[in-house]
Order: sequence, then C-alpha cells, then structure tokens
Amino acid sequence: MEARRWLSDVTHPADRPLLNVSQAAPVDPPPAPLREAMADIVLNDADAHLYGPVLGLPALRAEVAAQWSTGYGGTVTPDQVAITSGCNQAFAATIATLCTEGDEVIVPVPYYFNHRMWLDMSGVTTVPLPAGAGMIPQAADAAKLITTKTRAIALVSPNNPCGVEYPAAVLHAFRDLARAHGIALIVDETYRDFDSRTGAPHDLFADPAWDDTLIQLYSFSKAYRLTGHRVGAVVASPARLAEIEKFLDTVTICPNQLGQRAALWGMQNLGTWLADERLEILDRRAAIEGNFPLLADKGWELLGCGAYFAYVRHPFAMSSADLAPLLVKEAGILLLPGTMFMPDDIAGGDSQLRIAFANIDRAGVETLFNRLSLLEL
Amino acid sequence: MEARRWLSDVTHPADRPLLNVSQAAPVDPPPAPLREAMADIVLNDADAHLYGPVLGLPALRAEVAAQWSTGYGGTVTPDQVAITSGCNQAFAATIATLCTEGDEVIVPVPYYFNHRMWLDMSGVTTVPLPAGAGMIPQAADAAKLITTKTRAIALVSPNNPCGVEYPAAVLHAFRDLARAHGIALIVDETYRDFDSRTGAPHDLFADPAWDDTLIQLYSFSKAYRLTGHRVGAVVASPARLAEIEKFLDTVTICPNQLGQRAALWGMQNLGTWLADERLEILDRRAAIEGNFPLLADKGWELLGCGAYFAYVRHPFAMSSADLAPLLVKEAGILLLPGTMFMPDDIAGGDSQLRIAFANIDRAGVETLFNRLSLLEL
Repeated sequence: MEARRWLSDVTHPADRPLLNVSQAAPVDPPPAPLREAMADIVLNDADAHLYGPVLGLPALRAEVAAQWSTGYGGTVTPDQVAITSGCNQAFAATIATLCTEGDEVIVPVPYYFNHRMWLDMSGVTTVPLPAGAGMIPQAADAAKLITTKTRAIALVSPNNPCGVEYPAAVLHAFRDLARAHGIALIVDETYRDFDSRTGAPHDLFADPAWDDTLIQLYSFSKAYRLTGHRVGAVVASPARLAEIEKFLDTVTICPNQLGQRAALWGMQNLGTWLADERLEILDRRAAIEGNFPLLADKGWELLGCGAYFAYVRHPFAMSSADLAPLLVKEAGILLLPGTMFMPDDIAGGDSQLRIAFANIDRAGVETLFNRLSLLEL
Repeated sequence: MEARRWLSDVTHPADRPLLNVSQAAPVDPPPAPLREAMADIVLNDADAHLYGPVLGLPALRAEVAAQWSTGYGGTVTPDQVAITSGCNQAFAATIATLCTEGDEVIVPVPYYFNHRMWLDMSGVTTVPLPAGAGMIPQAADAAKLITTKTRAIALVSPNNPCGVEYPAAVLHAFRDLARAHGIALIVDETYRDFDSRTGAPHDLFADPAWDDTLIQLYSFSKAYRLTGHRVGAVVASPARLAEIEKFLDTVTICPNQLGQRAALWGMQNLGTWLADERLEILDRRAAIEGNFPLLADKGWELLGCGAYFAYVRHPFAMSSADLAPLLVKEAGILLLPGTMFMPDDIAGGDSQLRIAFANIDRAGVETLFNRLSLLEL
C-alpha cells in the first residue's frame, strides 16, 4: 500500500511510461480455454455457487496429492492436503495452529513481509535469521536461535524477495534441525512452478515420516493466473489439518468454489501451457543475468535471481527507503526497497532493492537497466 | 463439523428421507440471469481474474454506500465500506483491530458460534449476556458487564440462532451504551434481507456521527445465493477500515474478484427477485408459527422465530446435546442443539434447539412438525 502511494503525485512522460516491477503477480487473465471452462462451470455446476467442505474440494485435494506424489517422488495423500483462500491464508492458518502469543518463529531475512505482518498480528516474535552467502540461509545458524519458545522455521523457496532456489541439501538440514527440536518446518513453495531446476526441487516428501515436521504451502495463483480467485494450499499431517480446519471454518468457512474448480481444471489440462510459461519466466531471468553487467559497471550487485525476482544492491549513498520513491519520480520505475523485507535493526536493507521481473520481457529488462544505469544521484 | 459426523452411520428409510434443518444457507445456485452475467464476466473481464484493491471493488463499495444511505435513511460513503471474503472474515478482521489478548467482548447468548470461536482463537474473553424476554438482550443488562477490558458489544439482528428481530429502540440503547463507554457496537445484519419489517430495521445510520461507534457486518451470500463465492462487507469508519485493511491484506490480499462483481450485479439487477425471495422466507416463517400449536400441545415452546430460524424449547428430559444426534436416528431430522450456542455454564441450552427452516417449504414444515410431535423418548 505504501508503494502505491508513491505513484499518486507523479506524472510519467509519454516517452517514459511507468515500469512497474513492484508486484509478484500475473497481469494477464488465465488462458482462454480455462476461462471457457470456468464459464461453463458457472452456468452448469450448481455446487460451484454453494458452500463446500472447509478443507477444500475433494477432487482438488486428490489431484494435488497425486501430482505431488509423482512430482516429489514421495507419498502425499488427499487427507494431507487442504485448500485455502490463497497462500497467505495458508500461512495464517498454519501459524494460528502452531503458536500462541509470545512464541517465536525463525524467518530468514530478507523475509516475505506478509509473513512478518501475520506474526506481528498474532503476537508471535519473528526471529530474524540473516541469509548467508548467496542469500541462502543455513540450518547451523538457525540452530543457535532456537529457544523453548520456538515453534517453527519458515522458509520460502524459490525465495521472495531474493529469487534464489534453496538447494535440496539446505532444506534437508533445516528439516533435520526442526525435527530434532520437535518444531515445524514451513516451506512456502509459491514460486515452485518457475524453478529453473528440472525434476523435484527437494525430496522432503520422499521421507515416509515427512508430515511429522514438514508443512508445505502452495499457491495456484501464479501457475494458472488465478490471483483474483484466491486459491492456495497447505500440505501437512491430517492432525495439523484438523486444527487448521477450525481456523478456516471460523474465518472463511470454505475456499471459493469456482476458483478451486478452476485450479483443478488447470492442473488437469494446462501442463504444457504451464511448462511454456516457466520457459518464458526463465528467459526473463536469463535477460536479467545477461544484461546485468551494464549495472555492475556502475557499482550495482546482483545478490539473487530466480522465480519472479532479482534482488540487487544499489551503489547510492542513500537508503533504499528513500531511493525507491525517488526512482518513481526520476526514472519511472516502481520497485520495493530492501528495508521492507527486514526489521529496522538488521543491516543490509538500506542498500537493497527487489525487482519483480515476471511482467517485463527482454525489451523491458533492457529499458529497466538502461534507466537504472543512467541514474545520477 | 460435529453435526455432520452424526450423519455418518445412519441410514434413512426411503419413506423418511433426512430433513436437514441444520444449516443457514441457500441450497440452490444464483438465478440464471446472474449466472449468465457471471459467465460473461469470466470470459470478457480480465480484471475479474487478477488481484484487486484490498478493501474491495470500488464500484461495489459505492453501490453499498448508495443503497445503504437510501435504505437506512442516513449517510454512508464508499470509504466507510469494505468488502471481505465472507461475513465471518468481516467479524474476524474487525475483532483483530479492536482487541488484543485478554480483552473482552460482550455477546448475547445464545450466540453465533463462529463469533465465539474467533474470540477464543484471538485470546479474547467472550462475556455472555443472557438474552432477556423474547430472546431480546437489553443494554441495561450489558451495562453491568462492562469492564476496563471491554472493547465491543457484538449483536446479530435478525438473530442467529434465535431468529428474532431486535427492535430499533433496543439497538439505539446498545449504541448509546457503547458510545458512553467508548467501545464499539458491532451489528451483524447477515439476515437483514429477510427481516419481516418493512422499511429500515433501525436508524443508527441516520446519526451523522454513527461511525464513531457502529460497525455493521453484512453478507451477500444469502441474498444472492453466493455462499460459494465468499463475499461479505463491513461498514465502519475510514480509520477503522484502514486498520482492517492491514488484516485483510495479510490474510487474503483481496476478496475474490468474480464474487464481488456478482454481488454488484445482484444489487443492481435482482431487487425484485430478492423481494420475492424474502416473501417466500416470510411464508415459511408463517408456516412455522401457524403449525406450532401441534408441537405446543406436546410441551414444546417457540422461543423465537424469524430470518432463517426458529429457536425452540423441547419437552424431553435429556440435554439437547444428546437429543440432536438421537433425532437423526429416530426422526431423520438434522438440527443443532442449543448447547452449541452458549458456554457450558449458562443454563438453557440443554432444553433448546435451532431449526434453520429456510430450505424447507410449507410441506416440509408440516413433515418436520409431524415427526417431532410423534416422538416418544
């Protein structure tokens, strides 16, 4: 909301329209076949307009379980899957079942600010774990932060805001650490479908006992362009989901029914389309990496890149909190400052910026970098 | 969820199918013209698939403001209206901005159990206010319960579970009490569209300073049969909505976009249809009241009736908590026991039952009462 306010009193010249690299969301609707399928459901499936099960459409839970079992090389059953009103609600519901006021959750910084906001609203202390080399946090560092009040470690991979894909071994180590302490490992895989690695990004689900520790969060919004329909998922033990059910029942009763059917249709019919979407995003990522030398020459550093995001260090002698609104005025660029992704008392945010590049193509990347490289502040 | 479990091991004879009077929700989809409008939106309105403003679709907020101003004879502006993912989320978000752990909210009993559940999850103490004569709570009784920790009084009118419509003077008195103590008066008007009174059910919005105290909750689910799309509203001061925006942004980002457009279409085009729906519900209510003597002869008492609900006292020497599952087996009737609507230490619930009659017509009411009158326990 703050970033949107920076736009309110700025007029952009016709030859330099605003380049919005602030939001990590599709700007186009779902592909036509999915829209047509949804219209058919609206007209002909009465149940799509009525309340449904709190934990989600059984067919969608089953489809997620089946595709996850194949994709991750493990066993995920339908009763280990719940559908939520978006992935943020999945996080909120999960934390509600894990924590009470005064508890602690370890979160790598930079963090996804919505996670921080929900922890704050819940009276739960966010314990920052500075990302290490390559913006990859290490379990050994997290181990030093665990107290009797720690209830979970919450990771995002591919990461928001850093873009980096956490290696399977890193996730393994976090899982082992969490299990050893009897706490939960939350892994938010919202950007999973745009991971540059082929095959499963990790094999945590291959462990038959995965659900004693792992809680995975997922979003259908990015893959099928369903942001406006609010459909996410949480994959966890049936016992955990029985607790999550109480939260969901009380707050929204059920996820929206049409969105769930759209997600199911997408999973069953848009595999090839999604594979192409991924290749396009990977091409944009390659454009960021390939063109970065232009900025590196001016003192910029690429700290992380992947999924929808490039996370960069700028060369200017001012805080990113001041630089970001200035970029709207001086360069017609809207992006988010690193200070939004970490507490005030953690160093680094002042010099960092997040570029959400998913909505700009190769030409857009070149325009962006040209504008940034010409900046004199 | 508990009530659904009672069904699991019972088979109903073909000549005595289950009569489900447990849930307060439409069982039919929206009328065809609305479904057709929604299909058109799905196909042709790209924005209906993307993120929208956290506080809701501006056109829907403006429509609510305009219809409320006319309908209640007062002034409600668009910036005093927010759209939520259903009315339960409106309550959850409101409480999140009013209360912290250890605070208190005064709630008449019997209460809507989702309100109690959210207060429990939030660490907020539910202070029960026993409903007085005619199941109408009195501000004078509430006054005795106010402490330094009280943050709000939460009413539901027409009431769930009692069905009764709170007189305007009662709401006035609660508003005055709340204002005098600097606390909020929450009025959940989910069932407003089925109120038997013509004209505005109260004139609280006619007070130019209404938003210093009043927070009204509303649902589009019942009026336009949009339960599966999760669209509700909260009407409050812009300052309160700015706080509510933080909760909504963190938990669901925005209400589902298609559902909001459907609600708007309904408000603009289904006025006559909704008026007929109301008359049908009022006819079912009349059937309940007209046929009740059959039960009164057997010792039953009608405690309250209106909106979707009849709230009754049964004559049996057992708790409603035991009677309700027995009714599934012995009479093929699913309804909810009074014990679900109040704390264990409040008297009355044992002898009370809620009948949600909105989904049974006159013939269904007669069947229901015949089965209940023949019961020998």
